[in-house]
Amino acid sequence: MPTLSARAHTLQESPIRKLDLTAMRFPEVRFHRLNIGQPDVPTPGPLLEAIRAFQPEVVAYGPASGLPACRDAAAAYHSRWGASLQREHVAVTTGGSEALLFAFAAMCDPGDEILVPEPYYTNYNGFGTVVGVTIRPIATRLEDGFAIPSDDVLDGLVNERTRAILFSNPGNPTGAVYGRDELERIIRWAARKDLFVIADEVYRRIWFDTPPTSALELGAPDHVVIIDSLSKTYSACGIRLGFLISQNGELMEKVERLGQSRLGPQPLAQHVGIAALGLPEDYYEHIRHIYRERVDAMMQAVTAVDGVRANRPAGAFYSMLDLPVDDADAFARFLITDFRLDGESVVVAPGGGFYADPARGRSQIRLAAVLERDRIERAAEILAAGIRAYGA
Amino acid sequence: MPTLSARAHTLQESPIRKLDLTAMRFPEVRFHRLNIGQPDVPTPGPLLEAIRAFQPEVVAYGPASGLPACRDAAAAYHSRWGASLQREHVAVTTGGSEALLFAFAAMCDPGDEILVPEPYYTNYNGFGTVVGVTIRPIATRLEDGFAIPSDDVLDGLVNERTRAILFSNPGNPTGAVYGRDELERIIRWAARKDLFVIADEVYRRIWFDTPPTSALELGAPDHVVIIDSLSKTYSACGIRLGFLISQNGELMEKVERLGQSRLGPQPLAQHVGIAALGLPEDYYEHIRHIYRERVDAMMQAVTAVDGVRANRPAGAFYSMLDLPVDDADAFARFLITDFRLDGESVVVAPGGGFYADPARGRSQIRLAAVLERDRIERAAEILAAGIRAYGA
Repeated sequence: MPTLSARAHTLQESPIRKLDLTAMRFPEVRFHRLNIGQPDVPTPGPLLEAIRAFQPEVVAYGPASGLPACRDAAAAYHSRWGASLQREHVAVTTGGSEALLFAFAAMCDPGDEILVPEPYYTNYNGFGTVVGVTIRPIATRLEDGFAIPSDDVLDGLVNERTRAILFSNPGNPTGAVYGRDELERIIRWAARKDLFVIADEVYRRIWFDTPPTSALELGAPDHVVIIDSLSKTYSACGIRLGFLISQNGELMEKVERLGQSRLGPQPLAQHVGIAALGLPEDYYEHIRHIYRERVDAMMQAVTAVDGVRANRPAGAFYSMLDLPVDDADAFARFLITDFRLDGESVVVAPGGGFYADPARGRSQIRLAAVLERDRIERAAEILAAGIRAYGA
Repeated sequence: MPTLSARAHTLQESPIRKLDLTAMRFPEVRFHRLNIGQPDVPTPGPLLEAIRAFQPEVVAYGPASGLPACRDAAAAYHSRWGASLQREHVAVTTGGSEALLFAFAAMCDPGDEILVPEPYYTNYNGFGTVVGVTIRPIATRLEDGFAIPSDDVLDGLVNERTRAILFSNPGNPTGAVYGRDELERIIRWAARKDLFVIADEVYRRIWFDTPPTSALELGAPDHVVIIDSLSKTYSACGIRLGFLISQNGELMEKVERLGQSRLGPQPLAQHVGIAALGLPEDYYEHIRHIYRERVDAMMQAVTAVDGVRANRPAGAFYSMLDLPVDDADAFARFLITDFRLDGESVVVAPGGGFYADPARGRSQIRLAAVLERDRIERAAEILAAGIRAYGA
């Protein structure tokens, strides 16, 4: 029996998805799924029309960095906020996932490190494992709104293998949005250390108070890379289209070569992307309205539960909750296997998976406000009853 | 300016695609493109219908290893040749490219090695670079029909970092097909050394004499992994759908986790895949007929050229040609920038890019029989005239 790689053995089972498999053993239970960031908002019509319209004689390869029209559309879209972007600053990828993988590979050799504020999107670990890169966490706290610590603290985390700082803004799983000053401070710090800044901005159009600042707006063109995706903004997770955007020409040349090794992203998905990027501004207001209502309902319901502490998301549609339980992982399993309220229960994402050391998220869960308002309220009710039952 | 990774600097520009950029500078010339394996055969109707029919309310994520129906279809399809495959033996991927990347990552740590008969598909280098794995070539020769050397020679190439042997069968760029005995010998050898066998079988339905044996038919279920793809068989390169297939359960579990890190392959492409795998057997006869006619035309034309040696492809649609030129790379550029026959010229892939050491392919080019018969004949005529002009 041939042995598998050490990196294969370090791959975690997705902490977000693993409870789904358990839930499948109880087909008679109505589960409210707040564990996965899969929106239930209908995909906009123009995207579905773009699918229907794609009927070439030969479904051929496209260019490695994307169709010129799709790159141009993304450059024009992101130029709305100040940066002056051209086609060559955009690489089209198979989801934000591939954009992250390419960024890691272009910046890091095996053994190199990337700093990431913790808690963080759990799949950053997966990309790190594939390319042999270590994610080094920057501890942040719910009590501080998950703010990034001072330059002095950051300085202490840098070593000769550190290549980049990576964060999602708005944040998954925290819902935190970095203010313009905070973001400017981080980018200035990174540029001083000559580190890349990878800003995962896939939730950027979903905000509730102040629109998030893009890392692209703050200068540092050689250091900043942003990641974008159709998934959340356009309820098009399954189309798998993302973007890596940077004004660093040398980086983009290497990303083009990384792209050539897998030939090119799917042209059909890029036509869907062009349709998405052409939606009018009121579409974005529409989804902000939907998610604001849901997040408000969720926060109102969960903060009324005794012993629960939660941050109110300023963007995205997630909240990290601190629960009055000793082990949120066991609690999440209890909700699926044992607890029922009139034949219903909820699936949540245990917090441990969002930490490099799961013990630090031991009493936390992440909720995603991806269901309609009445279902979210019902889910919070079940959660509250579940906490009481678990404590008893 | 932050520095890029060493691996980024070792990424080659695609030797197959780079001449295309040069050709774009001559819009007035009619180029016959024999450099890229992009078929011009129309994509079958049922695949285009599957695209049109994909109109879900929400374009949602699918499972990490693929939709159950798509995995089942691939398992049933590949079970036609003897192996008894189930859903859990199939992982659906974004093209054969991602299947190769996952195989490399699951088997190898940075610094490990994979043996590959040379000349080989140039993108194997790219995947190796991304995951930090070295491709170690096994020299084969045009004069020997690119046969894999004896066990003794293979023994001498194995060291403590060797993890797998990888080959394409039918071969890209050689068109060689390994006979059943040869394949059996290689697999037996690999199993004895406890190495994985990665059989890239994306050209398996395109053969001209004897149908190729799949590595899955020969036992060794713990060692064998096959790679398949819609691209060439169904003229669907742009749909980006591939498969990684193995009966090694531990490997498939790790591939599932690798898949989770990028969420899942596109569901739409998988519906296209289900349509493709359901095509009747006469579809495959139809494409074999088309490519046999083209390959015959190509071989007849090029072997008539003074000083050209070529292997006749037994499968796929490529041939490696040895030309009477000192530098095939310079010759390929000459065809694009200087040589015209009535305003026409050809784009070919220089052989060096298919070798770990480009010097070994210095007098060779690869041709892809991806155009209609009369254009292939015309291209061969231009090539012959080009060789005469280059020598003069």
